[in-house]
Amino acid sequence: MPKILDSPWDDTSHPVILIVEDSDEDFYAFLRATQNLEFVQQLPYHFLRFQDGDETLNYLFREEEYAGLDAPLPVFMLVDLNLPGTDGREIIQQVKRNPALQIIPIIVFTTSNNARDVQTCYSYGVNSYLLKPMGAAKMQQTIQQLFQYWFNFTILPNHVSFSF
Amino acid sequence: MPKILDSPWDDTSHPVILIVEDSDEDFYAFLRATQNLEFVQQLPYHFLRFQDGDETLNYLFREEEYAGLDAPLPVFMLVDLNLPGTDGREIIQQVKRNPALQIIPIIVFTTSNNARDVQTCYSYGVNSYLLKPMGAAKMQQTIQQLFQYWFNFTILPNHVSFSF
Repeated sequence: MPKILDSPWDDTSHPVILIVEDSDEDFYAFLRATQNLEFVQQLPYHFLRFQDGDETLNYLFREEEYAGLDAPLPVFMLVDLNLPGTDGREIIQQVKRNPALQIIPIIVFTTSNNARDVQTCYSYGVNSYLLKPMGAAKMQQTIQQLFQYWFNFTILPNHVSFSF
Repeated sequence: MPKILDSPWDDTSHPVILIVEDSDEDFYAFLRATQNLEFVQQLPYHFLRFQDGDETLNYLFREEEYAGLDAPLPVFMLVDLNLPGTDGREIIQQVKRNPALQIIPIIVFTTSNNARDVQTCYSYGVNSYLLKPMGAAKMQQTIQQLFQYWFNFTILPNHVSFSF
């Protein structure tokens, strides 16, 4: 399966799929769902997970502990909305306002189907908004659909690497 | 199948899926692909097609011939890039810059896999970028994937209707 990086310093040569998820349970449910999907296993990306909005922004903007990190930006981001501290809404807004980062596709993956959250995220420029399903079978189906759509059907932006 | 409107004045009560496509051949290939998809036939939307970028912007911004049109905004847009006059890139940029319109998901559907087009469209805020496939079987598969992903799996923004 795609290697799961403990830190973006672990491998600075491969582009990553970034997962921002504070719940261990939800993160491992996501991982298990990917494990039966052969084409996901063969993607040339690593998974990187953050549990915290501030660390996510520091990584993306190469600030504080990530100043000097010379690694490609993520090719794709899956973001939970409710996080401790800086939340997913703020991550979306900051990424989509930044000319170097805004091309990264961001998919919200949340339990909130609150209409205001949906409107806010789309108005901030999120690429798509998905609800976390209940149960392993539905999770598997959703993850399959998500990866098939984005990695087998769409054209993703070219990977970029930049230094501030 | 979803009713195809000849003009947005034909039915001002149902929200529409807007298709901006100058080629008759490509538009009818798209329509044929939707005809075998039962869940697409049951969507509560109408299809509205424009062949021209200027008319598309007039419709979205309710200007010129569409001043006074009191109809909901499209729930979803499928946009070809190369159009006579104002092209798809300009439509994306104008819609995504406008606070009332920017929540509408826009999917590029084009024959161009030019990296610059892809980067430009994502930087303008397009939600997703799809290549038009060659041949009826692949078209069917792509359209199925497209509608399944957006209409069965994602949460779309609420429909809005507004007057300028």
